[in-house]
Amino acid sequence: MESGALSRHDDQLAVEEPLEIRIAFGQGPERHQESLSVTMRTPGSDQELAIGFLFTEGIISAANEVLSTRFVGTQWEDDMQYNSILVELAPTLAFDSQQLSRHFYTASSCGVCGKGSIELVKTHTCFFPIEHRPTIAASALRLFPERLRSAQPIFSCTGGIHAAGLFDPNGTLLSLREDVGRHNALDKLIGAALREGRIPLRDQALMVSGRASFELVQKALMAGIPILMAVGAPSSLAVELAQEYGMTLVGFLRENSFNVYTGENRILFDA
Amino acid sequence: MESGALSRHDDQLAVEEPLEIRIAFGQGPERHQESLSVTMRTPGSDQELAIGFLFTEGIISAANEVLSTRFVGTQWEDDMQYNSILVELAPTLAFDSQQLSRHFYTASSCGVCGKGSIELVKTHTCFFPIEHRPTIAASALRLFPERLRSAQPIFSCTGGIHAAGLFDPNGTLLSLREDVGRHNALDKLIGAALREGRIPLRDQALMVSGRASFELVQKALMAGIPILMAVGAPSSLAVELAQEYGMTLVGFLRENSFNVYTGENRILFDA
Repeated sequence: MESGALSRHDDQLAVEEPLEIRIAFGQGPERHQESLSVTMRTPGSDQELAIGFLFTEGIISAANEVLSTRFVGTQWEDDMQYNSILVELAPTLAFDSQQLSRHFYTASSCGVCGKGSIELVKTHTCFFPIEHRPTIAASALRLFPERLRSAQPIFSCTGGIHAAGLFDPNGTLLSLREDVGRHNALDKLIGAALREGRIPLRDQALMVSGRASFELVQKALMAGIPILMAVGAPSSLAVELAQEYGMTLVGFLRENSFNVYTGENRILFDA
Repeated sequence: MESGALSRHDDQLAVEEPLEIRIAFGQGPERHQESLSVTMRTPGSDQELAIGFLFTEGIISAANEVLSTRFVGTQWEDDMQYNSILVELAPTLAFDSQQLSRHFYTASSCGVCGKGSIELVKTHTCFFPIEHRPTIAASALRLFPERLRSAQPIFSCTGGIHAAGLFDPNGTLLSLREDVGRHNALDKLIGAALREGRIPLRDQALMVSGRASFELVQKALMAGIPILMAVGAPSSLAVELAQEYGMTLVGFLRENSFNVYTGENRILFDA
């Protein structure tokens, strides 16, 4: 229906399907599998998503703690065979079984939803304090939204998908991932960086297509990202967490305006 | 920063804080408490949120299964006393302990994230099949976005919050809830309806401010809502689920246009 005129046509939809993340861990006869989480995601970059999720949840801290990732068929539906992924963790990866049990209960690709108690909400980044660099010129910052948007292959078809992109301080887009879940888009981006040995992402700025929530700030901090820019609004807790860790948080980033909530030392305003 | 001019001022932020949902259940000496979930929410309507969450997760099926709800102080931080809520369930509420254990592992205010396996993703509504009524005129539908937006008290200050609203077929807004999490806004709306004996919401249309995901369709189905309209795009799985249950799903609802993905029988187009 458009301006009173009714028409019938096919529409491209952003694909949303469940991905179960399983892990195998332990040594010798103790080694076994657990189902850790199910997230609703857009298929693609699933291995990066799984690894990024394990990393931003604090279950792994380095790429070499993962031996392999592979899709494993499920028993209930044939067409779900790409909807379950098994991550083989290094046998030497020491687990506090209590820690795993906490994660098993609580892990969620939403970062916080589903956690078993408030104490479990916070993860802890290895990259604290965050360095003062880099700095970004305000004039460069304003180019980012259009660059992110024009690089989104799925969004341009569907209008229904989130993006997370990493930029260098000159405004060059270095990598981009899309997903129906913004937390997944970020986990995919971070998972790719982890596999390529690019963590911590010290000299880069992260831009997300939606709002800046607590969970996105937390995931960015886990990867050592010093600057987070969002097209939408930040929440109160996002601002508090960014402040606490010395991250630069920019919201409502548009071509003609933006708001700096924390860490304005990294933004260079023209004289 | 606006059009090159730098200014410094206070900004209103949408508040985001954790809410732990605890339940007390069982009879006599067997009665005990469990922490079920932590969700990041905007404070306000917390009792409705907790009850709506329990309902859309399938843990309760009627308001009288809840004896009381109250805030309970937490041990770790004084200022968190409003961030933990205890729902006393009726002792007669029969729990399959396996069922509870599944929920304990998997419950998430995201509806699906954090669930322990793919089998657990789907909840089951009591209100299937959905009735054919009501019908809504296309001309009325197009008034909804402005009516929802102008009724959002927090959005107008912060620009950073989701809304879920119930409309009658004439386009009158009946109730509205806001939250930083769209699943929470919907749980608050449904929780309020449950407390007031208005479930199933047979003759009403739900409008949400963001995209239409699988989880929102599922929550709406749990409350028997026949029509879901979103400002944004639906996902593929949202369309599949709506189709399966005979729900009308409208996306990209704007003043001058909208898309009907499923259940077009409930939309009356002008001659």
